[in-house]
Amino acid sequence: MKKIIVTIPAGDRHREYLEKIGAGCEFFYTSPAAVTEDILRTADIIIGNVAPKLLTCAQGLQWLQLNSAGSDNYCAPGILRPGVLLTNATGAYGLAISEYMVGMSFLLQNRFYQYYGNQMARRWKDQGPVTSVWDSTALVVGLGDIGGEYAKRMKALGSYTIGVRRTAGEKPEYLDELYTTESLDQLLPRADFVALSLPNSPSTRHIMDERRLRLMKPGAYLINVGRGNAIHTEALLKVLEEGLLGGCGVDVTDPEPLPENHPLWAAPRMVITPHISGQYHLSETFERIVRIAGENLEKFLDGRTEEMRNLVDFETGYRRR
Amino acid sequence: MKKIIVTIPAGDRHREYLEKIGAGCEFFYTSPAAVTEDILRTADIIIGNVAPKLLTCAQGLQWLQLNSAGSDNYCAPGILRPGVLLTNATGAYGLAISEYMVGMSFLLQNRFYQYYGNQMARRWKDQGPVTSVWDSTALVVGLGDIGGEYAKRMKALGSYTIGVRRTAGEKPEYLDELYTTESLDQLLPRADFVALSLPNSPSTRHIMDERRLRLMKPGAYLINVGRGNAIHTEALLKVLEEGLLGGCGVDVTDPEPLPENHPLWAAPRMVITPHISGQYHLSETFERIVRIAGENLEKFLDGRTEEMRNLVDFETGYRRR
Repeated sequence: MKKIIVTIPAGDRHREYLEKIGAGCEFFYTSPAAVTEDILRTADIIIGNVAPKLLTCAQGLQWLQLNSAGSDNYCAPGILRPGVLLTNATGAYGLAISEYMVGMSFLLQNRFYQYYGNQMARRWKDQGPVTSVWDSTALVVGLGDIGGEYAKRMKALGSYTIGVRRTAGEKPEYLDELYTTESLDQLLPRADFVALSLPNSPSTRHIMDERRLRLMKPGAYLINVGRGNAIHTEALLKVLEEGLLGGCGVDVTDPEPLPENHPLWAAPRMVITPHISGQYHLSETFERIVRIAGENLEKFLDGRTEEMRNLVDFETGYRRR
Repeated sequence: MKKIIVTIPAGDRHREYLEKIGAGCEFFYTSPAAVTEDILRTADIIIGNVAPKLLTCAQGLQWLQLNSAGSDNYCAPGILRPGVLLTNATGAYGLAISEYMVGMSFLLQNRFYQYYGNQMARRWKDQGPVTSVWDSTALVVGLGDIGGEYAKRMKALGSYTIGVRRTAGEKPEYLDELYTTESLDQLLPRADFVALSLPNSPSTRHIMDERRLRLMKPGAYLINVGRGNAIHTEALLKVLEEGLLGGCGVDVTDPEPLPENHPLWAAPRMVITPHISGQYHLSETFERIVRIAGENLEKFLDGRTEEMRNLVDFETGYRRR
């Protein structure tokens, strides 16, 4: 009898769904904060994130289903024993985070944040010209579920979409052009919107360094979800102070959380949200996580582990498919 | 030889375009602020808005092409002599204002304004759950160019779109349902987004009064472009204080401009911009105004006045087609 530790906040409906698939398994519901080493020692399966350092004691673990899309903290050597299956929740966050990104695109372009600043000062003041998403060019760097969903929406709104991914592949219909990361330098000067949705990895760290920030079209907008270190913070501050960008909106920062005295808070045309685009802030995100877990549980118990969704490759930190 | 007074800020390229169509006409370029009664007395045609009270002296005027979509100030008796043709710039603003409305929808739903308030206080603070445009229901009240373009975009983003217009007509593809204004009370409780883009007229004044505001779904978002008096301001303040709405975003207010000491500035979940969604803030808007003026000029000079675009019916204040 498999023992399944569930750390996501499953309601009655979600428990019923999972327990039907895992009929005969023993379910134990807890939370990332409450889970103990004693419980983890007994786990065959874990559904939901657990502090990585606790996992060393999960000696019987066969499969960990994360509720996060990012999995880099779990790929480090010594966290999971060889042979343990790791799946992430890619696909659950695309809706919430891509809508956040679309919203951020308009927030920057229409200067809504400047108007809200004026409103707080009770100031009826025109902030001047804007641009449109229609007829813009959006450069989407990172084409996982999130980047893809963002590109689809921008395309539907009349933007010309260019995608950049790590490895070559077939161009989906919602992209007008598709390239690999090697072409980034040539693409940056063309884009009105540059949107980063990248996992944390050595190759994505500081992908937007000072040189690349300066390759952006003057007045263009930069958006970052995923990991704060995709942008070199000091370089960003520099180009913002120079007025190079039309605006920059990020849900992730480096350092994170951003300390109260950090200059990025008040940098010109900078918009910061505190890593809230994902999580369970949209209820549909949680529904999708439970569905991914349920479908994977069925395949795992059937022994069809190769068919499981979002299996993470420990070497690259990306999912295998 | 017709004399054409142009009060819109036409650049060289625009002048060349208009003068080619109006070959043989005399063009006089000025601005709404600089135009004099002496000049207006000589006008056969005016392209661009002029203070309505000045128009009484334009005794030779045959056609006025407005650069605004609203034309109510020009329909009052005594402003234009009977027989003068009036065309507005409907169609020029749909892009800019519908993008503003989409942006406002996300601003309210994703609470970006609250996060920007937090940012100004250097506060890294989670503001809780959000909703999505996907799978929402958008009620679009007023289906001119602006409302229609907004509905199209919301539909493309996965919203279920319900349109409300003054008169019955064929349902366009981008609407899931279409009704006339009589059905508004039944529709308000169904909508997550209620978006008003209405001209100023007795029938649209206070269309959202306290009773109708209370018919809205708790937590729904209200957006107003067009005219501030479509919403009863005191009633809005009341329901905002009660926390009935998820948020309200307006580009127009009543009174307008909003006085510094007005309570609406600081009402909970209220977002105010200072009538900036239109104007020429998007350069494409001006391009479209010039194109409408040029196409109408061609038809006017050809004597095909019935074919002119955006001819205003003085009785309803709406364009005839």
